[in-house]
Amino acid sequence: MSEFDLIHLIARRAGAARADVALGIGDDAAVLGLGSGERLVACVDTLVAGVHFPAGTAPADLGWKALAVNLSDLAAMGAEPRFALLALTLPADDADYVRDFASGFHGLARRHGVVLVGGDTTRGPLSVTVTALGAVPDGAAIRRAGATAGDVVYASGSLGDAAAGLAMVEGRLAGLPAETARALRRRLDRPEPRVALGLALRGLASAMIDVSDGLLADLGHVLAASRVGARIVRDRVPVSAALRRAVPDADARAGFACAGGDDYELVFAAPRARAAEVFAAAERAGVPVTPIGRIERGRALVVVDGDGRPWQPERRGYVHFDAASAASRAARRTRRVAPGRAR
Amino acid sequence: MSEFDLIHLIARRAGAARADVALGIGDDAAVLGLGSGERLVACVDTLVAGVHFPAGTAPADLGWKALAVNLSDLAAMGAEPRFALLALTLPADDADYVRDFASGFHGLARRHGVVLVGGDTTRGPLSVTVTALGAVPDGAAIRRAGATAGDVVYASGSLGDAAAGLAMVEGRLAGLPAETARALRRRLDRPEPRVALGLALRGLASAMIDVSDGLLADLGHVLAASRVGARIVRDRVPVSAALRRAVPDADARAGFACAGGDDYELVFAAPRARAAEVFAAAERAGVPVTPIGRIERGRALVVVDGDGRPWQPERRGYVHFDAASAASRAARRTRRVAPGRAR
Repeated sequence: MSEFDLIHLIARRAGAARADVALGIGDDAAVLGLGSGERLVACVDTLVAGVHFPAGTAPADLGWKALAVNLSDLAAMGAEPRFALLALTLPADDADYVRDFASGFHGLARRHGVVLVGGDTTRGPLSVTVTALGAVPDGAAIRRAGATAGDVVYASGSLGDAAAGLAMVEGRLAGLPAETARALRRRLDRPEPRVALGLALRGLASAMIDVSDGLLADLGHVLAASRVGARIVRDRVPVSAALRRAVPDADARAGFACAGGDDYELVFAAPRARAAEVFAAAERAGVPVTPIGRIERGRALVVVDGDGRPWQPERRGYVHFDAASAASRAARRTRRVAPGRAR
Repeated sequence: MSEFDLIHLIARRAGAARADVALGIGDDAAVLGLGSGERLVACVDTLVAGVHFPAGTAPADLGWKALAVNLSDLAAMGAEPRFALLALTLPADDADYVRDFASGFHGLARRHGVVLVGGDTTRGPLSVTVTALGAVPDGAAIRRAGATAGDVVYASGSLGDAAAGLAMVEGRLAGLPAETARALRRRLDRPEPRVALGLALRGLASAMIDVSDGLLADLGHVLAASRVGARIVRDRVPVSAALRRAVPDADARAGFACAGGDDYELVFAAPRARAAEVFAAAERAGVPVTPIGRIERGRALVVVDGDGRPWQPERRGYVHFDAASAASRAARRTRRVAPGRAR
């Protein structure tokens, strides 16, 4: 089976179709339309086996996740996803693997009206790079910069489940009831990008980011870009019933919720006076949002516990590259965890 | 050094700037403009160490080549390149490597007015995936489909040098004068995407592709998409003076020129009556083009030698995935060669 057959195997399974795809897979490049008054929004993310996902991840889950992490980036801009390009590197020619991968990828793509318009399949160590292309009306993109003192900080859905799922995979969390374990693992393997919420927050959120590296690490990027600080109330950070069952200790649980990566929830700021509109937008999008603190002057990110005392998780987030970490550690862990400060 | 620092290290070295980049590297996604009446043209290509390039390739050459192979795809559509996204996977945190990689990447990007607008750096086995974004006026893209019987087939520049450079790396070609060896190796490491020629051929070429897998293999894609055949005259296929010196035997030389990959020249068809316009376009673009045969009815790709006798190279092109090839072969060779038919 040749490279071309693999690409077509993936392309054939695509369910969605879009009138703005003038030319899709099968030529040197895709030809795509954009509405007048729209801006193109583009991002790319790579998942490497043994670094960003456990080596034993099911191909359908990997296909889903590789697209999900990119749609999450578009969601964090308030962009509407439209097209994707896929670069899949496989150690061996395996049509079954590709078929399963495609089913996961397209399963998520169809939900969001995304069409796969280009691809490259190559032989090498397992990794996936997806480029996602979307659109926003001119001037409507929600950036990391834009939060101002007094804004409320919100988080969507619940945080920490994916990190708990990873802890299970790594054997750091064990003995959970089957249903709890399944729920946590599913958040790790099948993240739901908050596309509808991102769209609903256009013109409402002053700054936004998606949580890929951990709440505090990613919120730190918003604060740096916006040149502000924030005060977060630890016990307001939303957690799922599954995480409550899996991690009864409040301090440990807050560690997962505040420093765990891979949740792909949205964290955003919005003016206090527009809180009712924020909740209405979340209602429309079908995703709960929770106020977890506020934007402040200065540049500090302070987390306080239930008694108002400063609190700090053992580690603030995930960092891919760290001078102090040897490559061998990356091979042992599914995702390297560094004690580094959030930026 | 964190992932963020590596991205910024690459981004900082970018020379080009474009007014249509509303938001570049540093947020969740880039925000880009497209002119009214324009279509977006998008492609992605991955280069894996030990498969698509020799493991010892200089990082600056790799940076150049990873962008070049994608700009070549845009050129083959007649598209004007504008933006690129880079996913770079490195086995270790190596700022010097990244700096050198960036200098090669941006060196080519500047020549073509391309801005790096997004990126992801990850840890893992060395590989590079570039997404290139360009534009064509609505309806102006040059596809693989469109060649009709009677059209002349042209090739740009010269073919076979990169394959000879690869043969040197693999020890299959040795004892060449230093200058000859340098010239061939440079074609392998620093391909020149024929962007200006692609633009000049808008409205003129009936079908076009770039030569990445070998002249006959890639021309085969044009014939399949256009549902036509072709008759190619082996000794008209343009070769460089360096290749003539390196491979004196005409038959062996034609093997490199007709079946060697990685040249990134353009092969296209155009109506016979427009030959003068084709040569004028090539003159404007500063790239020679050579008529090498014609499009015919039927579906056969026939190559004839100097005496008009059917001729066939030992192998027709490069194929990445082949059921008969074990992964171990890929590890030994820099690019696997399969005897498969051209499509």
